[in-house]
Amino acid sequence: MKQIRTFLFTEAFRHFSPEGSAIDSVTRDAMKELLGGKGAGLAEMGASGVNVPPGLTITTTTCHEYYDQGGRLPDGLMEQVREKLAVVEGQLSRRLGDPSAPLLLSVRSGAKFSMPGMMDTILNLGLNDETVLGLAALSDTPEHRRFAWDSYRRFIQMFGNVVLDIEKEAFEHELSAVKAHAQVKLDSELGAEDFVSVVDRYKRLVREKTGGDFPQDTSEQLAMAIEAVFRSWNNPRAIFYRDLNKIDHDLGTAVTVQSMVFGNLDDKSGTGVCFTRNPATGARELYGEYLTRAQGEDVVAGIRTPRKIAELAQEMPAVNAELLETIARLEHHYRDLQDIEFTIEQGRLYILQTRSGKRNATSAVRVAVEMAQEGIITREEAIGRVDPRDLIQLLLPSFDIKAKARAKDDGRLLATGLNASPGAAIGEIVFDPDTAAERGARGDKVILVREETCPDDIHGMVPAQGIVTARGGMTSHAAVVARGMGKPCVAGCETFKIDVHARTLSVAGKVFRDGDVISIDGATGEIFAGSIDTAEIAGSEHLDLLLSWADELQGLGVRANADTPEDARLARDFGAVGIGLCRTEHMFMAQERLAVMQRMILADDKASRQAALDELLPMQRADFVGIFEAMDGLPVTIRLLDPPLHEFLPRLEELIEEVATLKAAIKYKRSGGRKAGSSNSTSKAPKLEVQLAERQALLAKVRDLSESNPMMGRRGCRLGLVDAEINVMQVRAIFEAACDVQSRGARVLPEIMIPLVGHVNELAFARAVLEKTALEVMSERGVNVEYKFGTMIEVPRAALTADEIAQHAEFFSFGTNDLTQMTFGFSRDDAEGKFLNHYLEGIDVLGEKKRVLKDNPFAQLDVGGVGKLMRLAADGGRSVRPGIKLGICGEHGGDPASIAFAYELGLNYVSCSPYRVPIARLAAAQARLSGGQRDR
Amino acid sequence: MKQIRTFLFTEAFRHFSPEGSAIDSVTRDAMKELLGGKGAGLAEMGASGVNVPPGLTITTTTCHEYYDQGGRLPDGLMEQVREKLAVVEGQLSRRLGDPSAPLLLSVRSGAKFSMPGMMDTILNLGLNDETVLGLAALSDTPEHRRFAWDSYRRFIQMFGNVVLDIEKEAFEHELSAVKAHAQVKLDSELGAEDFVSVVDRYKRLVREKTGGDFPQDTSEQLAMAIEAVFRSWNNPRAIFYRDLNKIDHDLGTAVTVQSMVFGNLDDKSGTGVCFTRNPATGARELYGEYLTRAQGEDVVAGIRTPRKIAELAQEMPAVNAELLETIARLEHHYRDLQDIEFTIEQGRLYILQTRSGKRNATSAVRVAVEMAQEGIITREEAIGRVDPRDLIQLLLPSFDIKAKARAKDDGRLLATGLNASPGAAIGEIVFDPDTAAERGARGDKVILVREETCPDDIHGMVPAQGIVTARGGMTSHAAVVARGMGKPCVAGCETFKIDVHARTLSVAGKVFRDGDVISIDGATGEIFAGSIDTAEIAGSEHLDLLLSWADELQGLGVRANADTPEDARLARDFGAVGIGLCRTEHMFMAQERLAVMQRMILADDKASRQAALDELLPMQRADFVGIFEAMDGLPVTIRLLDPPLHEFLPRLEELIEEVATLKAAIKYKRSGGRKAGSSNSTSKAPKLEVQLAERQALLAKVRDLSESNPMMGRRGCRLGLVDAEINVMQVRAIFEAACDVQSRGARVLPEIMIPLVGHVNELAFARAVLEKTALEVMSERGVNVEYKFGTMIEVPRAALTADEIAQHAEFFSFGTNDLTQMTFGFSRDDAEGKFLNHYLEGIDVLGEKKRVLKDNPFAQLDVGGVGKLMRLAADGGRSVRPGIKLGICGEHGGDPASIAFAYELGLNYVSCSPYRVPIARLAAAQARLSGGQRDR
Repeated sequence: MKQIRTFLFTEAFRHFSPEGSAIDSVTRDAMKELLGGKGAGLAEMGASGVNVPPGLTITTTTCHEYYDQGGRLPDGLMEQVREKLAVVEGQLSRRLGDPSAPLLLSVRSGAKFSMPGMMDTILNLGLNDETVLGLAALSDTPEHRRFAWDSYRRFIQMFGNVVLDIEKEAFEHELSAVKAHAQVKLDSELGAEDFVSVVDRYKRLVREKTGGDFPQDTSEQLAMAIEAVFRSWNNPRAIFYRDLNKIDHDLGTAVTVQSMVFGNLDDKSGTGVCFTRNPATGARELYGEYLTRAQGEDVVAGIRTPRKIAELAQEMPAVNAELLETIARLEHHYRDLQDIEFTIEQGRLYILQTRSGKRNATSAVRVAVEMAQEGIITREEAIGRVDPRDLIQLLLPSFDIKAKARAKDDGRLLATGLNASPGAAIGEIVFDPDTAAERGARGDKVILVREETCPDDIHGMVPAQGIVTARGGMTSHAAVVARGMGKPCVAGCETFKIDVHARTLSVAGKVFRDGDVISIDGATGEIFAGSIDTAEIAGSEHLDLLLSWADELQGLGVRANADTPEDARLARDFGAVGIGLCRTEHMFMAQERLAVMQRMILADDKASRQAALDELLPMQRADFVGIFEAMDGLPVTIRLLDPPLHEFLPRLEELIEEVATLKAAIKYKRSGGRKAGSSNSTSKAPKLEVQLAERQALLAKVRDLSESNPMMGRRGCRLGLVDAEINVMQVRAIFEAACDVQSRGARVLPEIMIPLVGHVNELAFARAVLEKTALEVMSERGVNVEYKFGTMIEVPRAALTADEIAQHAEFFSFGTNDLTQMTFGFSRDDAEGKFLNHYLEGIDVLGEKKRVLKDNPFAQLDVGGVGKLMRLAADGGRSVRPGIKLGICGEHGGDPASIAFAYELGLNYVSCSPYRVPIARLAAAQARLSGGQRDR
Repeated sequence: MKQIRTFLFTEAFRHFSPEGSAIDSVTRDAMKELLGGKGAGLAEMGASGVNVPPGLTITTTTCHEYYDQGGRLPDGLMEQVREKLAVVEGQLSRRLGDPSAPLLLSVRSGAKFSMPGMMDTILNLGLNDETVLGLAALSDTPEHRRFAWDSYRRFIQMFGNVVLDIEKEAFEHELSAVKAHAQVKLDSELGAEDFVSVVDRYKRLVREKTGGDFPQDTSEQLAMAIEAVFRSWNNPRAIFYRDLNKIDHDLGTAVTVQSMVFGNLDDKSGTGVCFTRNPATGARELYGEYLTRAQGEDVVAGIRTPRKIAELAQEMPAVNAELLETIARLEHHYRDLQDIEFTIEQGRLYILQTRSGKRNATSAVRVAVEMAQEGIITREEAIGRVDPRDLIQLLLPSFDIKAKARAKDDGRLLATGLNASPGAAIGEIVFDPDTAAERGARGDKVILVREETCPDDIHGMVPAQGIVTARGGMTSHAAVVARGMGKPCVAGCETFKIDVHARTLSVAGKVFRDGDVISIDGATGEIFAGSIDTAEIAGSEHLDLLLSWADELQGLGVRANADTPEDARLARDFGAVGIGLCRTEHMFMAQERLAVMQRMILADDKASRQAALDELLPMQRADFVGIFEAMDGLPVTIRLLDPPLHEFLPRLEELIEEVATLKAAIKYKRSGGRKAGSSNSTSKAPKLEVQLAERQALLAKVRDLSESNPMMGRRGCRLGLVDAEINVMQVRAIFEAACDVQSRGARVLPEIMIPLVGHVNELAFARAVLEKTALEVMSERGVNVEYKFGTMIEVPRAALTADEIAQHAEFFSFGTNDLTQMTFGFSRDDAEGKFLNHYLEGIDVLGEKKRVLKDNPFAQLDVGGVGKLMRLAADGGRSVRPGIKLGICGEHGGDPASIAFAYELGLNYVSCSPYRVPIARLAAAQARLSGGQRDR
């Protein structure tokens, strides 16, 4: 039996799929191994029924033969090639070497794995002194004549270099000579006659270099080209590339010989690109552009403006109809939106290439949903088609991509800080919260730019469009509060030099003043001068459908982190099935409450402390009422006060500065008073002294509360274990609210979460005290609330002793932010700007740049380290309480890779900020679909 | 066969040990179960051949019978009691109820487990209206007559309350009436006749309350008393106690009936206490005191001054000889120094009680060593007899215990801070390091009292006797440096109010000035006003011998933490087998080096940075030369720079204050200048401005380096990974020193330790860079040094991924301080004064005081949490590198309980401060002897 060394595109697919049906990935791999990636692609496209410029592929096994025989084409190969080529010639009514109807060919390499640019390619094969005239004669324009001769000279140059091994520079030298003679600078300025003389010079060059004429026999051209492609498998470049990418050197390359078609022959010819659906909106419509009388390179060159694809219907109705039909075929075959290149040669449509089309999030969602509705893909596949991370574009304002790119080109990018809270915002700079509040009230759009923010600034953060800080990390006050508000924030712009007194911001060599407009992208951390157009947020109809399919898979529950009734409602709208983290401290940060909170902290005796707590109680209760109402029927996990108390007080450094200044001022007033005897100065001194005494007292208290490492200081449950009053007040507020709301007919499911537990006694003791309060309140109100007590697992020791802790906890919520901090020993605020950035970008290791960490562990859960602790905790917890409810709160709860791990661990839910809930719902479904083992 | 319900003391022991030989703990337990703790003790003492007041014990099984029969004494019991009692009567020539020679008895409870005070006791049983006269007649003094009647009234009162159930208050009421009548206030002021009338009143009271007379039949008294003791097993107090202590309610109590002997009968009678060896020095000599004509209570009352036991030899030579012989018996039987109580009745010696004698550390060591030498105990037992923690008393100055107690009684204890570095020191207060240096140079003994110390203070710490700080924890600068210097330090005396400008210290309502003397105890954290006598440090001859025995057991190696050649020599003297932790940063803290270090940190360009490093290199090399010479032949583990760089710079807060003050001063000078037109003030302003600019620049740098949580910031290996220069300089210094020392004939074994590794890449990359420097230096010098590279395991993630890390580490050293901090999420500096103190002392949990943590995890390794991580790390490390060297550095390395865990984990060594090396050596041997399973 004759060995099959060549396949026509149209027959190759049937060789692997005799029924012509879709193939699986193993078969596709085998096909690629035999025909190379390119040959297999063309075969599959051909088999899908679309019109591909016909051609054939010489197998990789032939390449093996070539090398086995010491670099000689196997006997009979060229006969087979000729045989198949005859079919091609028949289809196109052109023939290789026929001057009256010349067939031109491309000869390309193609290995199983893509090796872009590493091996050789020859185009326009088949041209010689006669066929070039025939090509020119195919059309009657001067442009076409120029095209023919340009193609011929390109062919000689490429063939000369690749096959005949003449260095490129020699050809460039000749071309330059012609350009000099023609007194032009660019190739495009040369005319047909110029190329005729280039061809002359090239042929002379070939003769000089090889001692023979440029081969005029087109069959000889073909054989030589095929051999050159085989040879190029082992050129040094290709070997180096395979070594680098660990590709087997024995695979060999296939050779694809394809007919060339011309979109520049007449008015019924053209070339274009199109998407099978709109990649911006996802609508099922042709989207693209084309040019008549043009080759692909003309479109790229941009000399003529292409026409919208919609016009094709008028200009070439038959071609348009064929294109529409082709699109349907390709989508059905490839089961995805396709980005295709096509050429029309004298009214005949050829598809040159098709691939999955890039699309934005809106389009991705709509395409996936509609394809599922059309039956092209399954719902599960639709879910898998959308990158959850891209959904943020659909949920929050973002800048128009092109507008942002233009702004960058214009040099308007001022800085890139930390992407602390996503969303796009445009506004006028203000440097202090009072101005922000005042101008915000007037309806001005402002962006608050601060060195860093503190609880005193809240009233200025609320009305601002966005927030920028020069210092502080992803967990700084600004970042946390902004995320909580769903407000764009860029933190830690270290290059910002802010002068609060002068009200100026210096950055990137420019100075901005109060009122200057900037645009900030909280999703990327970019800050721009001036205003940038925002993109429209599309309707959520398709997304809602996709997410409802996702929810049906029940990967794992998605809850939201929400601290206010507004957030709770938003979370529910976004599809959260509960609140996974309600941070009660944020309730104390509002300006009027902060004053009471400070009074409570600074109280000198129990009575005044309790009085302040009594004032806080109804405020906190009101918040809980709102949250419970919003979450009727869904669980609400409430974390008791967590941060150290000094976070509610003025900053130590500022107080030190104030006190020093006051002291110096008093000294001045006194000595000035004595010197000048001015009654004015002496009369002022006592007031200053009163002020000093007050500030000094506050400083003493703040100093007393300040800590070297507040992250690991007196916070979390430690606060309540030393002084239970605040927690008792909080639990009272929670249960009073729960009883009230429940007695109005709603179902309230509070889950009280005690933070920062590291030892079972901490939980057991705190719970004992607080559950008593809970029972008291329920008995006072005569209402029974279904409640749970549980804890955060955020201290490594809690994870290590989870079996002990679970005896007192009805649920665990992994506080992966702090757990990551303590497991790595990374203080996030300090790490991100001081060493973690270096770790992620790469550090110098003996001259090589190496990344210490592949991913930021605060963005994506560190499965190898933190994940091990989580697994210990989950196993430990289940060992004593099999059904224990497990969840993640913290930023990892919104990260798809981390959600996949959470699914694998068998967690019940993840919790994330409201805007990330849709992302997490989709990621949860994908985790389920990925089919990983799930612990229970 | 008759059921044996009673045993004479002299026969009980043989029941369990028919040969009368020593018994094992199982047999002792069985004996205690049958006879109760008290009965078993008396039986064993009796069996040892010493003369015990004779008596008998009724078994616990009899108690069961009593309850089984519904609260009735078993038939035949009293006959058996009478039978045994006859033996006792014969021995003493007295009889129960015999007025001419009355025998008095004590009747006591005694269960298997001690239940102090929970059950009932009756003394002086056997007294009645007739025998009281007989007792009085035994001696002819008025005191004795008073004693007899007082004994009778006490018996009626006790019997009345316990057996007849008459409330105590009724008796007290009668006694008060007699005292009122006699017009005295105290019992001791009553005479014999007064007690006669008390007895009358008591008998009348009994008649009123019970309707019958107080029982005059002594046999009836005895039966009733025995029954009452059985009954008291189930009184509510006893039941509660057993519930609380988880003691089985079915055990029952035994009843011990013992004859009472009298040391107050004549001049040949007396009572005393003595130790079988000197509990202060350990010398083999009688140590104690006695009184003639006295009962035990007379010694306690302290009315007469007891005599030294040495005088007994003159006064009663026969008794003295018997006492000496008894002592030898008791020591041989109990195999330990005994603390005994004895009574001499008319020339006859009775031993009332013997128990292991309390002793100080000096005595404990000498007694253990000498008893081993005498063959009484084995060397292994000797090792087990000394609490390693007590050795510190033998190694560092300490205050005389009595002198300290007196100082406390005198109200001189001012405060108790953290026991940051052990040892006792006395000196005059100085408030700043300059004064300390100046006065120290003059030879004055000073104690440096500071708010907290910083590297700038070192020159004042060196000459100080001790250091006290008002702020800062066990790992504060003062604490760490003082421990390194072996200098007493009390840190974090939060009640200290220091006014540096006024040079005063206010505490405990007193004000101390510069030059006032205080005494500090670094082992306890106590601070006293004035001077306190110190105890002498005994010779180390016995200790050296004990430790040499300990070392022979090869529990695990003990290395020392040492940063200087002096420390290294000291460590070697104390028996360290290497240095486990040499903290290189301490080498930069000396004053002249600090300036260079600061220059390096503040350098604006690479060149000046390198210039500073070039200056530091020879300094650091010289230190290593000294250390390597001192440790010739032993390994030296050197930790590369660990703390964040801001620790070498002035403190942020101080700079803020300075800058604010300077700013205000400039403002003053300017406005003052304008106002007054004084040339003086204007001429000063520019200087201030220069100063301000300089401080502002420094402030900016310090602010840039400052961190929110420096413990988890840019420190450890993170420093070197971002900027390798410092570490490269350090490794160069180490290897230059190693090559130099080795080429002079010593053996140098450096182990380079990279700190704070959490991810394998950190170690791999750092090692790659540093090992290259090491190889370069060795090649330059042409010397080959046996070196190792390894890492600290102090970040939880390192423990969790130890298998990965071990691929690049030849050793692990557990940095248990930081590992504890991060595993618990406790910043030690913040925890100790802010919540950990509450956790350890107990917090209020619904009205009950409960301890959250039993032990301070920074003092004693938390086996349940941190220990789990350590086990994971040890297992992980060994899984890829079976022989990996494992050790602990950090303070746990000197804690016996932690050393026991280290032994169990199979670690190769622990490392601790030089002064704790002997403690660790002993603890290591004890760990080995405790026979726990050891991982390998």
